[in-house]
Amino acid sequence: MGNAELPAGAEYARRVPVPPARPFLDTFKANLKETFFPDDPLRQFRHQPAPRKLVLGLKYFFPILDWAPTYTFSFFKSDLIAGITIASLAIPQGISYAKLANLPPILGLYSSFVPPLVYAMMGSSRDLAVGTVAVASLLISSMLSKEISPTQQPSLYLHVAFTATFFAGLFEAALGFLRLGFIVDFLSHATIVGFMAGAATVVSLQQLKGMLGLQHFTTATDLISVMKSVFSQVHQVQILHSFQLPNFDPIFPSLQMVGVFSHAVEVGNCRAWVLLPLLPSPHPFLCGSDFTSKRNPRFFWVSAAAPLTSVILGSLLVYLTHAENHGVQVIGHLKKGLNPLSATSLTFEPSYLMVALKTGIITGIIALAEGIAVGRSFAMFKNYHIDGNKEMIAFGTMNIVGSLTSCYLTTGPFSRSAVNYNAGCKTAMSNVVMALAVMITLLFLTPLFYYTPLVVLSAIIISAMLGLIDYEAAMHLWHVDKVDFCVCLGAYLGVVFGSVEIGLVIAVSISILRVLLFIARPRTTALGRIPNSMAYRRVDQYSMAQSVPGVLILHIDAPVYFANAGYLRERISRWIDEETKSSKGEEMDLHYLILDLGAVGSIDTSGISMIEEVKKIIERIDIKLVLANPGSEVMKKLDSSNVLEAIGHEWIFLTVADAVAACNFALHKCKPNDSSCEDAV
Amino acid sequence: MGNAELPAGAEYARRVPVPPARPFLDTFKANLKETFFPDDPLRQFRHQPAPRKLVLGLKYFFPILDWAPTYTFSFFKSDLIAGITIASLAIPQGISYAKLANLPPILGLYSSFVPPLVYAMMGSSRDLAVGTVAVASLLISSMLSKEISPTQQPSLYLHVAFTATFFAGLFEAALGFLRLGFIVDFLSHATIVGFMAGAATVVSLQQLKGMLGLQHFTTATDLISVMKSVFSQVHQVQILHSFQLPNFDPIFPSLQMVGVFSHAVEVGNCRAWVLLPLLPSPHPFLCGSDFTSKRNPRFFWVSAAAPLTSVILGSLLVYLTHAENHGVQVIGHLKKGLNPLSATSLTFEPSYLMVALKTGIITGIIALAEGIAVGRSFAMFKNYHIDGNKEMIAFGTMNIVGSLTSCYLTTGPFSRSAVNYNAGCKTAMSNVVMALAVMITLLFLTPLFYYTPLVVLSAIIISAMLGLIDYEAAMHLWHVDKVDFCVCLGAYLGVVFGSVEIGLVIAVSISILRVLLFIARPRTTALGRIPNSMAYRRVDQYSMAQSVPGVLILHIDAPVYFANAGYLRERISRWIDEETKSSKGEEMDLHYLILDLGAVGSIDTSGISMIEEVKKIIERIDIKLVLANPGSEVMKKLDSSNVLEAIGHEWIFLTVADAVAACNFALHKCKPNDSSCEDAV
Repeated sequence: MGNAELPAGAEYARRVPVPPARPFLDTFKANLKETFFPDDPLRQFRHQPAPRKLVLGLKYFFPILDWAPTYTFSFFKSDLIAGITIASLAIPQGISYAKLANLPPILGLYSSFVPPLVYAMMGSSRDLAVGTVAVASLLISSMLSKEISPTQQPSLYLHVAFTATFFAGLFEAALGFLRLGFIVDFLSHATIVGFMAGAATVVSLQQLKGMLGLQHFTTATDLISVMKSVFSQVHQVQILHSFQLPNFDPIFPSLQMVGVFSHAVEVGNCRAWVLLPLLPSPHPFLCGSDFTSKRNPRFFWVSAAAPLTSVILGSLLVYLTHAENHGVQVIGHLKKGLNPLSATSLTFEPSYLMVALKTGIITGIIALAEGIAVGRSFAMFKNYHIDGNKEMIAFGTMNIVGSLTSCYLTTGPFSRSAVNYNAGCKTAMSNVVMALAVMITLLFLTPLFYYTPLVVLSAIIISAMLGLIDYEAAMHLWHVDKVDFCVCLGAYLGVVFGSVEIGLVIAVSISILRVLLFIARPRTTALGRIPNSMAYRRVDQYSMAQSVPGVLILHIDAPVYFANAGYLRERISRWIDEETKSSKGEEMDLHYLILDLGAVGSIDTSGISMIEEVKKIIERIDIKLVLANPGSEVMKKLDSSNVLEAIGHEWIFLTVADAVAACNFALHKCKPNDSSCEDAV
Repeated sequence: MGNAELPAGAEYARRVPVPPARPFLDTFKANLKETFFPDDPLRQFRHQPAPRKLVLGLKYFFPILDWAPTYTFSFFKSDLIAGITIASLAIPQGISYAKLANLPPILGLYSSFVPPLVYAMMGSSRDLAVGTVAVASLLISSMLSKEISPTQQPSLYLHVAFTATFFAGLFEAALGFLRLGFIVDFLSHATIVGFMAGAATVVSLQQLKGMLGLQHFTTATDLISVMKSVFSQVHQVQILHSFQLPNFDPIFPSLQMVGVFSHAVEVGNCRAWVLLPLLPSPHPFLCGSDFTSKRNPRFFWVSAAAPLTSVILGSLLVYLTHAENHGVQVIGHLKKGLNPLSATSLTFEPSYLMVALKTGIITGIIALAEGIAVGRSFAMFKNYHIDGNKEMIAFGTMNIVGSLTSCYLTTGPFSRSAVNYNAGCKTAMSNVVMALAVMITLLFLTPLFYYTPLVVLSAIIISAMLGLIDYEAAMHLWHVDKVDFCVCLGAYLGVVFGSVEIGLVIAVSISILRVLLFIARPRTTALGRIPNSMAYRRVDQYSMAQSVPGVLILHIDAPVYFANAGYLRERISRWIDEETKSSKGEEMDLHYLILDLGAVGSIDTSGISMIEEVKKIIERIDIKLVLANPGSEVMKKLDSSNVLEAIGHEWIFLTVADAVAACNFALHKCKPNDSSCEDAV
């Protein structure tokens, strides 16, 4: 069989070894380590003296200690520019998102001051810009509003929001400490594409209130409620109103123009800087087919500056025309001064504990998914490494500290990080610069926002949101994997027609169902020999593969578990039925069934029983069971359940080719199931 | 490389084909068929004229049409003996289990009359004996008693029990029609061992009421409630009571003796006939290590007749001593006559609909799991085939008809079927004989049960239950698979300390978690060449496998999905780290990474992205990515996502050996990542 060095018999005799028994605790420890510490984070601590271990430990939790000593002035110049750029984006976005969360607008500024400082010390990403995000803001609003009215009990609402942020931080840090980062992996790329698009749609719909100047608006987030709410108030729409009134008032329409303008500028550029420049394939949100093109977005600053420009223009217009007296809603008074402490505001009252906990966990995991994915994408692009669990601890600490200093939930939003990256940031110092810029704003510039009209904030939100709807990524999913597309669509429709939570549950359920279905219905395929080779491959994939007369070779391509053992037994029986009875009803000769277990990564007791049953079933019709290439787990379990003895160690082969050779040898020397023959093999 | 016929270049050039694009609907239909019709049930209908199709269809739903025409008198003799034997078991067991379900005892007899007749027509098992089961009876009692008191609203309780049976039947039939039989597979062997043992423990504990003659007893089923209930009533225990009273009354102790006697006889034999004779390995409940021994249980009829003997002895004793006047509880009056219709008793009132539906679905699936598993085990043993989905339709119809004729939930209980088998039954006709025997009892013999003491019924239940506790199977699980043992233990403890539902949920959760964990943490292993062979195998399994200098070969043994894509990326990076930096800190030469995708049965878009990312990461350190043996699904998705182009079709090989040969060829001719070199390959 191509191995001239070995006599034929010796080749067949190559045994598949049964792995030596290991103490249960050893196996258990090894499995535990592989599950929770796959990256072996303590590797660098090994064989180090104690003081060195302390330094390494501190550097592990505070990466700033690692990069600060080598920080140079040229780095600082880059970080300064990037920091100021993202501050110009952070200030109007912060105010907008705080409004979206039904929280006082000043919280948006507070949240852009303390958390970035914490992240700068603990985070390991060099490109992530910390801030609040629209989706989490909307979630906070929709989840808390169900229990507490933000207009009637504003102080309670605020306190529960802080508590939720505290729980989110605690949950994030706990996930990191307990090395459960892989939970975030269960939010697949497809889920996030659909979920983000759905959230963007919902957030944009919520902005109809501000854009149309409606007084009353639904607290529900689904499309149907919002549309009902809008159409029931058509008479209130300010733009129509102002045209119908005898004293025509052009102010609101003009403001809407400002909004639309800022919107157009941003959207026009948004897609340029959001989609094109910095998308390595793994990008979590936006994985269009054009991610390989690397056009340099020279005008990214136009869109980066657009929000602040819109705010300035809009505020000026209102100030000059006193539109606030004509019914145009403005931000109003913002308190001067830095973040007040809010540790005493955290409320652990049992009646609101559940809603705070639930909101915290859900928003925490969503924020985590966005932050980690953004950090990983940029790390991939700049070729450095990010430790997911460490990042979780950083995000968690940032939110715990934030909740104590009047901030609400923050993470690493994609849009702001993209601007940061494009502005040339070098380290997390750009976050410090942004924090300082926000500090100056808080100390001196808050009165300037008095006249900022809400309609401009709505436009800022909508334009940020539209960048998140990535139909190209959805098309890509449809093209490559229909199930992933269903997951994506499920998430989108769930969010748009149900709620954010429903969308998530639908998407995660479809994803898990797909995994379970793969396990429940593994493929079994017949193998044939590739001509001029020792390789046996699937006959449905390789048309040139030739089957071996008298021998059926089946390949199982999944672990054999309780969930599929019954199915596999039936399916193998059907294979044998089909093989022995040809289409014309003639009986065909079949003497051996070779099961290729090379792809069976794991097996449980039901699986072992299945193999034994198959052996019994086929032995009744004089077919012998032969195993090829079982892994060590399969061998160990076959041995400990005594099925190995029943099959016979001599009928287990290293490769399919060996097994076929042995079958052919036996077939031509004597009939199968003849004991004298088995001795010969 | 051992293939003298081919020039070296030609061997490298063996391409892995990209499967031709198939219309989406075709693929979808094929997948749907493989998922829901893996046994291809319509195969025999193909190419048949219409009348033949009708006959085949009728035979499909009514297997009696298949076997009745060839039924012989010698078959009938065997079935007659078996039928009478199981009737002698069915009558006392039926009454006992109906008491367990808090239903009128006569329902136990009704349920052994109509359902066996239905099953005889529709069922495809030849050995299954239909009847009520203890676990489902206990479940009905514990679930319904929470909402409706069986003592205060007996008629409502009865009607809701019929409704629950109706829903159970509907659910079972629907699962069969919708080809969702695989849902039952999710109750693994380990789950059922633990669950049955737990249920047996709980049922036995419930019998303490009857055995100790307690008046009040908890409706909860968990160990702690029952023990509390027993110890708070120690003073009531009749046996102590009777000894303490001045006029010592030996009747209750004697009855307990009868109970204990019958118990001892049964238990002694129980394990003989339950465990030893008829256990092919797949046996669902009791899979001890001794299932291969085939001792013939000659005295099985002793245990089969023991319950009826106990009932007769006990009743006689009570009748002669008039113990019913001394506080010994007896069955009392049983109505003569056949099953009254109960179609009008079904209640669909909204306030009880939910509890009926929930009870129906849970008891239905438990009953199904037992019935199907029992049917399959005996079919395996006698070498005939059982179609799970068809059986579900039979069970469903049997219960729907039952619920309309005053029966409660029935299935194929293991103990009764085992007796049936041992008594030599040939076809489902033994069920008909049993039904006729029960009919005669209903018509003429019910008054004889007036004096039957409840303590004997308790003994009957306990002895049936102890046969279900199979510690040997649990030991076997521990020995072969620790996770399965945890599943089993979880089910047992959940049932004993929580409730039946909690036990089930725990067991199914652990089982599914194990599957998800397998997917989330797939093993990656390095491969090496087995000397004197073209095979590359895991170096941790085969100590003789030799690694190839400059080439790292990794084998991934699970589908690559969103849940593990991130992990795999990190783990592969760590492999490369470990490979390039030896323990002494020296840099090692590594030029090629070969990923063996032979065991990657499925991939999604996250998995495809992972492969692309790995390629980018390793290219930065001048390592080339080579793929070996990708399946057709992987090839298709690599192609449609354009990753195939990025990797280069010429770097994808049929076998690891081919890939290694190509790498070696390139390595010795020129440096990697040199375009002129790639052309040469």
